[in-house]
Amino acid sequence: MSILVVGSVALDSVETPFGKAERVLGGSANFFAAAATLFGPVRVVGVVGNDYPTEQLDFLEARGADFSGVETAEGESFFWAGKYSYDLNSRDTLETRLGVFADFQPQIPQAFRDSPIVFLGNIHPELQLDVLDQVDSPRLVACDTMNFWIEGSREPLLEVLRRVDMILLNDAEARQLSGEHNLLKAARWIQALGPEYVVIKKGEHGAVLYANDWMFFAPGYPLEDVFDPTGAGDAFAGGFLGSLAGADRIDHEALRQAMIFGSATGSFACERFSVDRFRELHAGDVARRVSEFREMTAFEHELEAAR
Amino acid sequence: MSILVVGSVALDSVETPFGKAERVLGGSANFFAAAATLFGPVRVVGVVGNDYPTEQLDFLEARGADFSGVETAEGESFFWAGKYSYDLNSRDTLETRLGVFADFQPQIPQAFRDSPIVFLGNIHPELQLDVLDQVDSPRLVACDTMNFWIEGSREPLLEVLRRVDMILLNDAEARQLSGEHNLLKAARWIQALGPEYVVIKKGEHGAVLYANDWMFFAPGYPLEDVFDPTGAGDAFAGGFLGSLAGADRIDHEALRQAMIFGSATGSFACERFSVDRFRELHAGDVARRVSEFREMTAFEHELEAAR
Repeated sequence: MSILVVGSVALDSVETPFGKAERVLGGSANFFAAAATLFGPVRVVGVVGNDYPTEQLDFLEARGADFSGVETAEGESFFWAGKYSYDLNSRDTLETRLGVFADFQPQIPQAFRDSPIVFLGNIHPELQLDVLDQVDSPRLVACDTMNFWIEGSREPLLEVLRRVDMILLNDAEARQLSGEHNLLKAARWIQALGPEYVVIKKGEHGAVLYANDWMFFAPGYPLEDVFDPTGAGDAFAGGFLGSLAGADRIDHEALRQAMIFGSATGSFACERFSVDRFRELHAGDVARRVSEFREMTAFEHELEAAR
Repeated sequence: MSILVVGSVALDSVETPFGKAERVLGGSANFFAAAATLFGPVRVVGVVGNDYPTEQLDFLEARGADFSGVETAEGESFFWAGKYSYDLNSRDTLETRLGVFADFQPQIPQAFRDSPIVFLGNIHPELQLDVLDQVDSPRLVACDTMNFWIEGSREPLLEVLRRVDMILLNDAEARQLSGEHNLLKAARWIQALGPEYVVIKKGEHGAVLYANDWMFFAPGYPLEDVFDPTGAGDAFAGGFLGSLAGADRIDHEALRQAMIFGSATGSFACERFSVDRFRELHAGDVARRVSEFREMTAFEHELEAAR
């Protein structure tokens, strides 16, 4: 199954306790594609300025990312600069320049409209709705969002939620959106608006998938050094939806595996700046990490032990 | 296998967003015993004042807690009063009166000295060392500690760590003790001091067992309402060590199960004030929750999905 992702194709300057990177590949669509192409083809829709180092996307293209839906507009590419605290638990945004992204109007190429899986990256909810109006009848639509839209564009965001099957968001966003501190209650609140599946990402604490009558916990992969957490959430989404597309089925078991694949690809994203960790990464590396997750979570259940 | 626990047998007054409880059963030894007796007998050593409502311990005694090692001293019992924030993520201590606990000198009854599993509850590290001098040769010694001892009694605490097989502590304590923010590094730092096993409890995010060449993640059980988290850590320890004692073996598989049993009993502790949730709780209830944990974490690993 092919996946369509609509999101930012950006440049990031990042400073962590481990070093600095200047104007490197960033943006939700890039991180998503870097992870999802481990499993199969990805169709990308976005916009870049004419300053964008498009040759740097070659390695993603070679792996199956189709950037033909990324238009080049006159002006500057979306640029973000940030600096992480010593423990990487908080970050300061030093600069955000939307550039051509400010006037982004997603145009889904005809050839992309039949995509069975659609990921609406973290863009204005009105644009997410525009995308939904342009696609045929996907089997699964998932979206992301952020505090900025929850605060300032609540109505269109609620409309998006009525039209998607799944939302992936972090714990702070889930709490802000629902007004519930308890994550189970927050997930139930969001589900009541529409999405059958709510995936709450908790950084180092992993992620939880809330479905109607079941849920699934994926731990965070234990890293001694989180080199740069930028993009880990989008890499999670890419591994999650990519593995579903690769499995060619969307059922309980595939969704459970997808959570583990997402946690694995999210952790790889933290090991280098930008999408660099994905450059030499192969499906076998991900599979090995998934095996480690199994070792870290599987247990025998002997009822007798409790009697 | 019998378990020996040395800790506080206290009275708590607790206020949460859901209500208030006045002078109810509290203390590490009580919460530990409430959980551990689901699996088998527990020997308790501690001290109470002559104001203690010992008849309230009857239900624990009926389930196999042996309080013959709890002395009654002239004076007031250890009393703690606290109030939780609306989201139960922080609490203010309103009052702590050590009473007879201030002069506690653990005396391990002769009949308790052969205990194969020993849990050193959160008491002064010098007292924990005293206990270790009085027991024969336990198969597993585990300890707890807290910020107060990490700060003020570091040397004897490090000596305790040289002599135990396992420490159970929460994430903030692990960070404070080791000076490492990253929990994997914190666990490795602590292991280097002596304990083969480090169990880090992360509240709603579950717990992680770090062994020498493997680790295990137990999620927190998803509760819509955390009624009162007091004692959840000790109930975790009780379920953890209790299930090991019940299984009568201490190997990888038993330790993995024990993590899940601990997470289950820790979650039950949060459902009522004091040890009240354990009054009507049976091994079958715990086993059902363990089955739910399995549902929430088990996944098929199809390597092919990644290829």
